[in-house]
Amino acid sequence: MCELLGMSANVPTDICFSFSGLRARGGRTGPHKDGWGMAMYRDRQVWSIHDPRPSADSDMAEVMSQTSLKCDIVISHIRQANVGNVCLPNTHPFSRMLWGETWVYAHNGQLEGSDKLALDHYHPIGSTDSERAFCWILGRLAARYGDQRPSLEVLSSFLYELTSGLKQKGVFNMMLSDGDSLFCYCTTKLHWITRRAPFKKATLSDEDVSVDFKEVTTDKDVVTVIATQPLTEDEVWNQMEEGGLCVFNAGEVVFKRNTV
Amino acid sequence: MCELLGMSANVPTDICFSFSGLRARGGRTGPHKDGWGMAMYRDRQVWSIHDPRPSADSDMAEVMSQTSLKCDIVISHIRQANVGNVCLPNTHPFSRMLWGETWVYAHNGQLEGSDKLALDHYHPIGSTDSERAFCWILGRLAARYGDQRPSLEVLSSFLYELTSGLKQKGVFNMMLSDGDSLFCYCTTKLHWITRRAPFKKATLSDEDVSVDFKEVTTDKDVVTVIATQPLTEDEVWNQMEEGGLCVFNAGEVVFKRNTV
Repeated sequence: MCELLGMSANVPTDICFSFSGLRARGGRTGPHKDGWGMAMYRDRQVWSIHDPRPSADSDMAEVMSQTSLKCDIVISHIRQANVGNVCLPNTHPFSRMLWGETWVYAHNGQLEGSDKLALDHYHPIGSTDSERAFCWILGRLAARYGDQRPSLEVLSSFLYELTSGLKQKGVFNMMLSDGDSLFCYCTTKLHWITRRAPFKKATLSDEDVSVDFKEVTTDKDVVTVIATQPLTEDEVWNQMEEGGLCVFNAGEVVFKRNTV
Repeated sequence: MCELLGMSANVPTDICFSFSGLRARGGRTGPHKDGWGMAMYRDRQVWSIHDPRPSADSDMAEVMSQTSLKCDIVISHIRQANVGNVCLPNTHPFSRMLWGETWVYAHNGQLEGSDKLALDHYHPIGSTDSERAFCWILGRLAARYGDQRPSLEVLSSFLYELTSGLKQKGVFNMMLSDGDSLFCYCTTKLHWITRRAPFKKATLSDEDVSVDFKEVTTDKDVVTVIATQPLTEDEVWNQMEEGGLCVFNAGEVVFKRNTV
């Protein structure tokens, strides 16, 4: 399996504290040593890093855990390979263009029969079931809405349909973004926390690192962090519902649907 | 057009000095403001960074120009878009798997009729002529040699044939690597310099930055840097021949062919 980390914030915010915790699980406190990647959006433009090395040992991951690059949305992933070799083209997150925006996606889980997902416009370059499912999702969106991007509500409802379909094939925890919203779907494990004033101190579970968010925020900041497992030991994280889609925008939940 | 930067070294070496020079040309001392990217190999494994922002303004490029990550081979690119929007999937370098290795490629130039290049196994995810030519090259290699990687001599000769064919379509300055060798083809502009003992001081042309290589090397180090335009003002760079393929391995020229 793998672990996911996401962030949605209403002001450009750095991810280095949370990434330090995630990074340790990539070969030190966790077994997810088959590469890591990160996509960071600011003002809807995204930059990305991909490294097939264990994040715990990676010099590049060390740089990223110490560098306070500010962004609005982050999707990061540490991999424990099931399907597909350990190599750059199989390293999440994946990206493609749709409706003039760069969509980024990462997946935790495994899908049975993903090779039967019919593809049209989008094709994988690697050999993971994850990338194939991403290509299928974007292909479905393009087929349904053509060049015309639907409203966030309509889009989220249809994404819920698509992701619920993929849930039938196995484990499908995923994060997807167009640079505006962060779409998170959970079939087994995703946790999230929204930090806002009054901010407090937090301590990582995987590293001996604390941060007092009061010192690095203003009263207006709203920052949501989503992760496979809670990253801090002294905060209460929400568990996402199994079979639930949760959409975050500027740090707030803007759409939620689940099977219950 | 765009600018390219490559490095081949016999010991893990950082690229931050040269990248600082290149980076300035991405929107400050040069017009190549449509994104930048970098792939860095160490021990044949590669990590990559892609950013559609101007490198001169990019926080991520600032990080990379100050971080001394050591690597054996580097391919970096700053883009001035001709074909294809400014977006992450169109940002060089591109990568694909062949013969169990990750191949990385970046291109400077423009190709007429690149849409007529017949593709089979490899397909682009972006919309640049550059990525299409890369897919075509790897497809030709796979078709010619199947699963069996040929010797470097045979591979280089066939690459020379392929790249000479692409030269007929326009400007094709390119860098390609499998993590072992760095293949550079020149139709208009590529310069290179090999630094070895006795090392000297060098000063960037585009930034007020100098380095005394004596202080950061040993007598055994051999480091070749290849760039569209010379990056330093106090060293003599070699100009690559028009229509020439030059292959570097561990900092040394190991294959050279041109039309003359």
